[in-house]
Amino acid sequence: MSVTSRERFLQEFPSLVEELKEILVKYGMPNEALQWYEASLTYNTPGGKLNRGLSVVDTYAILTGHESIASLSNEEYKKLAILGWCIELLQAYFLVADDMMDQSITRRGQPCWYKVENVGNIAINDAFMLEAAIYSLLKKHFKLETYYVDLLELFHEVTLQTELGQLLDLVTAPEDHVDLSKFSMVKHSFIVRFKTAYYSFYLPVALAMYVAGITDEKDLKQAQDVLIPLGEYFQVQDDYLDNFGTPEQIGKIGTDIQDNKCSWLVNKALEIVTPEQRKILDDNYGQKNPECELRVKKLYDDINLAQYYHDYEDAVSKELKLKIDAIDETRGFKKQVLTEFFNKVYKRSK
Amino acid sequence: MSVTSRERFLQEFPSLVEELKEILVKYGMPNEALQWYEASLTYNTPGGKLNRGLSVVDTYAILTGHESIASLSNEEYKKLAILGWCIELLQAYFLVADDMMDQSITRRGQPCWYKVENVGNIAINDAFMLEAAIYSLLKKHFKLETYYVDLLELFHEVTLQTELGQLLDLVTAPEDHVDLSKFSMVKHSFIVRFKTAYYSFYLPVALAMYVAGITDEKDLKQAQDVLIPLGEYFQVQDDYLDNFGTPEQIGKIGTDIQDNKCSWLVNKALEIVTPEQRKILDDNYGQKNPECELRVKKLYDDINLAQYYHDYEDAVSKELKLKIDAIDETRGFKKQVLTEFFNKVYKRSK
Repeated sequence: MSVTSRERFLQEFPSLVEELKEILVKYGMPNEALQWYEASLTYNTPGGKLNRGLSVVDTYAILTGHESIASLSNEEYKKLAILGWCIELLQAYFLVADDMMDQSITRRGQPCWYKVENVGNIAINDAFMLEAAIYSLLKKHFKLETYYVDLLELFHEVTLQTELGQLLDLVTAPEDHVDLSKFSMVKHSFIVRFKTAYYSFYLPVALAMYVAGITDEKDLKQAQDVLIPLGEYFQVQDDYLDNFGTPEQIGKIGTDIQDNKCSWLVNKALEIVTPEQRKILDDNYGQKNPECELRVKKLYDDINLAQYYHDYEDAVSKELKLKIDAIDETRGFKKQVLTEFFNKVYKRSK
Repeated sequence: MSVTSRERFLQEFPSLVEELKEILVKYGMPNEALQWYEASLTYNTPGGKLNRGLSVVDTYAILTGHESIASLSNEEYKKLAILGWCIELLQAYFLVADDMMDQSITRRGQPCWYKVENVGNIAINDAFMLEAAIYSLLKKHFKLETYYVDLLELFHEVTLQTELGQLLDLVTAPEDHVDLSKFSMVKHSFIVRFKTAYYSFYLPVALAMYVAGITDEKDLKQAQDVLIPLGEYFQVQDDYLDNFGTPEQIGKIGTDIQDNKCSWLVNKALEIVTPEQRKILDDNYGQKNPECELRVKKLYDDINLAQYYHDYEDAVSKELKLKIDAIDETRGFKKQVLTEFFNKVYKRSK
């Protein structure tokens, strides 16, 4: 992703904030409310990698046969960028809330929104309003499109899916109560597909497909059948790097073991450990104690967990390549969309 | 509202919970997630007065010329009841979150959802999922209707309006920081119209109008022009009864003064007090101290605030009656819809 495409995408954001404020102005809302909404939108929405938003534009360019996004008209670019920002708003809505539920301290190198002075629990209502912004923007910019209702339903469905993933994660792996018998590889797969893959991988492509007019159910299914397992693979990498990546690679120090996370690594370990090793896991996983963490890390090395990961990576990437090769392009869908996603994920180290 | 109509409405709820669970079953969701969702839906959605939900059915019966809801077909009844339950779900979504933001302890005579064992901050995600249930039900039951997209947009808009009202309330009257200079009657009007009137008064009528096919913009505006000030009047009554009603009347002991609420009473007082009386308000309003509260209550009596309320009530009810009389019924809208709402509110004492 070149710096320029990210910057161009970022340049669209301020005008969307203005449009959203304009809605409040039309209601006659007092200034305090306007300023607060603007502050929440600006603090919580940009600032991430913006991969999800950017990939809406990129996918559309591929689907419509453009060499690059540079040859899209300004009007086309703006339209796709708005949908991209809608995904970023959806993510902001989730992250503001997730940080409260996880009692996190920082996000993207700054205090979590609910930790900002005078915000506190008002952040719950702010999360709601970040979500509401999506539907304000869709109404303003897409109401006259034949696929308007498809966009609304897609956002509704992916929102529910993500919330289900979050729910399953919260009840499976509460930070303050360790019970590894609740974990399983099947449950891990559910959590990451629902909590991450739908909104991060499927949603950007499906949005671009609607605008490009490639909306046959079979094509949406072809996209989903690759993008959901790809999103799962992406999250498994994340879990792997949390323990086996260097802090330089991942930009932080991994805390999954101490945080009782339902990570791919602990689930794979649970499948292969001896009863004695299982006891080590039960006694040390999810404890806020560096010595316990070290015992788990040593166990991961003893059972050669990294090799299991590499075997998984080889198998899943082979399978995904075959699926991508077999994509039926006759109705206009393009395997290149999926190849680009795949190449961004495959063997990434950060 | 007869007991029977409430009971009939309640009887529709369990099948909606089953439908919502069915969606999770189709996703293959593990049992824990299903049970949790069911528990949250059942704990948070019924249990209130259900006036909002019931009035969707009642309004539809009036608009379509039925003597009572008894003569609606079962299919018609169910359809309207589902929309009624969607309002109750919207309210549940708001209340679960409001209770967290206000740090409330009980709601409808039971612990607030976030206070229930093992729930805690997961309640934020549960609030999200209560909202998501609305769109699942609308899609399942109304997707083929010509007014489907109108329903979606109406729920989106009213949701945003309610969130804006909540935001304005939170920044105007934080419980832990008293600053009466932030209060004003204009702001009070904004808060109660946005936080309460749109979703409690306008939404039920607008939903029934869409189903009845009475959807001219002029008619929606006629409804709104009465129902929003009527909703404001309803909330002003609430504010009045919090101080001047008996605990038997209002089913609780009023705490607005101690809670620094931006109540109609304090705003009216601020308009008419002398500088000396203003100092009493500044020093005693919003303090968690029964003696401070008593000083404010005495001031309210000294300035004869109850009489100001009665004058307001007379003026607003006269104005509303005139507006209702002037309703244009030529396109099918019926003033009786508004009369019924008005009669439920006018001079109520609980």
